Amino acid sequence: MNPYVSLSRKELQDELSTVQAKFEAIKAKKLNLDMSRGKPSAAQLDMVSDILNVLTKPEQCIVEGVDARNYGGLRGLPVAQKYFGEVLGCAPECVYVAGNSSLSMMYSIVATGMAHGLFESEKPWRQLRQKPKFICPVPGYDRHFNILAALDVEAITVPMTPNGPDMDRVEELIQDEYVRGMWCVPKFSNPDGIVYSEETVRRLANMKPAAKDFVLMWDNAYCVHEFEGDFVPFEDILTLCREAGRPNMVFEFASTSKITFPGAGVAVMAASEDNLQYLMKFIGTETISYNKINQLRHVLYLKDKAHTLELMKRHAEIMRPKFHLVLDILEQEIAPRGLAEWQKPKGGYFVSVNAMEGTAKRTLQLCAEAGVVMTPAGATFPYGNDPKDSNIRVAPSLPPLSELEAAMEVFCICLRIAALEKLLAN
Amino acid sequence: MNPYVSLSRKELQDELSTVQAKFEAIKAKKLNLDMSRGKPSAAQLDMVSDILNVLTKPEQCIVEGVDARNYGGLRGLPVAQKYFGEVLGCAPECVYVAGNSSLSMMYSIVATGMAHGLFESEKPWRQLRQKPKFICPVPGYDRHFNILAALDVEAITVPMTPNGPDMDRVEELIQDEYVRGMWCVPKFSNPDGIVYSEETVRRLANMKPAAKDFVLMWDNAYCVHEFEGDFVPFEDILTLCREAGRPNMVFEFASTSKITFPGAGVAVMAASEDNLQYLMKFIGTETISYNKINQLRHVLYLKDKAHTLELMKRHAEIMRPKFHLVLDILEQEIAPRGLAEWQKPKGGYFVSVNAMEGTAKRTLQLCAEAGVVMTPAGATFPYGNDPKDSNIRVAPSLPPLSELEAAMEVFCICLRIAALEKLLAN
Repeated sequence: MNPYVSLSRKELQDELSTVQAKFEAIKAKKLNLDMSRGKPSAAQLDMVSDILNVLTKPEQCIVEGVDARNYGGLRGLPVAQKYFGEVLGCAPECVYVAGNSSLSMMYSIVATGMAHGLFESEKPWRQLRQKPKFICPVPGYDRHFNILAALDVEAITVPMTPNGPDMDRVEELIQDEYVRGMWCVPKFSNPDGIVYSEETVRRLANMKPAAKDFVLMWDNAYCVHEFEGDFVPFEDILTLCREAGRPNMVFEFASTSKITFPGAGVAVMAASEDNLQYLMKFIGTETISYNKINQLRHVLYLKDKAHTLELMKRHAEIMRPKFHLVLDILEQEIAPRGLAEWQKPKGGYFVSVNAMEGTAKRTLQLCAEAGVVMTPAGATFPYGNDPKDSNIRVAPSLPPLSELEAAMEVFCICLRIAALEKLLAN
Repeated sequence: MNPYVSLSRKELQDELSTVQAKFEAIKAKKLNLDMSRGKPSAAQLDMVSDILNVLTKPEQCIVEGVDARNYGGLRGLPVAQKYFGEVLGCAPECVYVAGNSSLSMMYSIVATGMAHGLFESEKPWRQLRQKPKFICPVPGYDRHFNILAALDVEAITVPMTPNGPDMDRVEELIQDEYVRGMWCVPKFSNPDGIVYSEETVRRLANMKPAAKDFVLMWDNAYCVHEFEGDFVPFEDILTLCREAGRPNMVFEFASTSKITFPGAGVAVMAASEDNLQYLMKFIGTETISYNKINQLRHVLYLKDKAHTLELMKRHAEIMRPKFHLVLDILEQEIAPRGLAEWQKPKGGYFVSVNAMEGTAKRTLQLCAEAGVVMTPAGATFPYGNDPKDSNIRVAPSLPPLSELEAAMEVFCICLRIAALEKLLAN
């Protein structure tokens, strides 16, 4: 196998004919495979289904004098604050334990900034003379970008490096007083799977943005989600920001959606006391209290950080072979042909593939024709606009291994066709 | 016992001395009693705690091909839509089953109206030349009013009658194009416990407001919450509005917070397909999907409407003696003295007491001094402003009977002192 760029026009045409024949054969199979989202597999869900049986008696529901079955306790059940404090490495009183969705907590922060301003704001962002802007490392998480679009916040992209966001660029951008926030997925970033380096984290915590109400949206979605190797410890971003003199600059988010049941887990936000007190005024208008029974069920099931990490090792046993399969197939089928580059993550839920420029959309269109659903091309960029039309997010977690293998076969063939078409069109 | 208004000044002074002595004796007991909110009692929570044990096996989680343990299904689990459709008397496809809080769904509707407009809106309410207004039957529910205050919507009050809101006044107000909505608690209204008459419901459904995006916020919080007598059937407001030619005028809300566990139940909204499709665009930005495990647990536990009504009979057994106690004590202690009037509800969670004008605040101040917490005076009016300083919401559900009796003794003494002070000051 030679890199496609080294092939003659004739060789490219022959290769296209060969691959198209394979593609037609696959289409005839009428596959129906899903690699679109970071969803745990049925095997993972079965593995954690004992959580259904840890809370069975009324007397268990009363913990430290609080009846988890009744209204009250807007910040969450104290035992749940303690559990998540340990996992995140922050003080329990900094933890606000809410419903099932960390995304909705992130939305709420940006929406509050727009409508009312945040604790450090002089006025609501909506009343600024220009649109507020958020820094978005790319490739990134489409749902983060959708929140900005829905709330009319402008997205400014910054490239990811193997150590995290390009910090020189970030430090320039924050001189703009209309830059009011930044999305970060510091551990196993979505989609690259990059762990921000210690230096990157320290530079982020020590930023001195022109806007004093600038917020780091610290989405620690994959904080315990290694599938390869040992647990990678991380520093408490709340402490770092406080030590750097800006205790109110950061909101940290996490959830158990990929520890227990997606959508039926528990989401948390960690922030300074000033930030939490300020937000509770608004949150208390929207809701009376969250599902503390589900919070309690999670504490009973997950117990503590050590026990949670043991459980994550068992998730890893299911996830690892899938990632190995994806990486091995890419290595065999795509690397020698020089058609794409990718990170080799050790945690998180994705493999981020940078295909030959101008071929991502076409690749995924072909995948769809062959019955393989992938995250849409462009989704990893704000406004769905990948300027190089190159990045593709592969989500290997949901399908069983046999289906994943079939889906990857389709994906590689589609990458090849799209590249060949592109090279022949030049 | 004679009505206080018929007493001479001397008799009033003697009476005040007698009652004040009783008050001092009660204060010495240092009570700590709570009649502030509509919270179910521990006995009710124990009664429904079998819900903890209905969903125990992974295979139960897969219903009609949907795995309730994974992401997806933003409108809710189909079996939950079916269950709530039966309870509310509307089509399952009109039901959107969400998280634990109907309040947050109501907030979301008003917030969406302000920020983006609703399905029938020409523009966001925020961009109107005047503030939008909502009609608020009074006395009403403080949390409804708080939503308006938080979102900068003006509250216009309309008096309640024994048949529901004063419809003549409502039909006048809706001629104003800036009137964009109305709160309704159609069954066992909060706090009066009034059931809107069939005529009132029909007049509401047949309204032709000047604003075509006017919304009826139909909070059917107590739809199956009889504590006395048989189930009171109600018509499907969605059907009535559709038949009246305004299918998009109504959003109906309900939850299981006072059927199973408050805060750990399931909340639903019923609306037209146009309304639901429109809203899902926004909701899909905020969250991936709701806790379908909790939805499923509720369906397994509550089964269907008939079974739910049986359960509500058992709640009624616990609630009824408490309401009888409150009404009996008021009848004995307050009626002969002519100090207040009240409804005699057959369902819901409150007794609404209209004390002598100008005495509600003072009464509750005295209650607080004696260790009895009640809903703050004025809370049942927008902006906390009861123009007559008269309405007091009594919430008898939480305390056990013995505590309730003690609390009512305090309450009656405080009503008497406040009335005596008032009469003597004239």
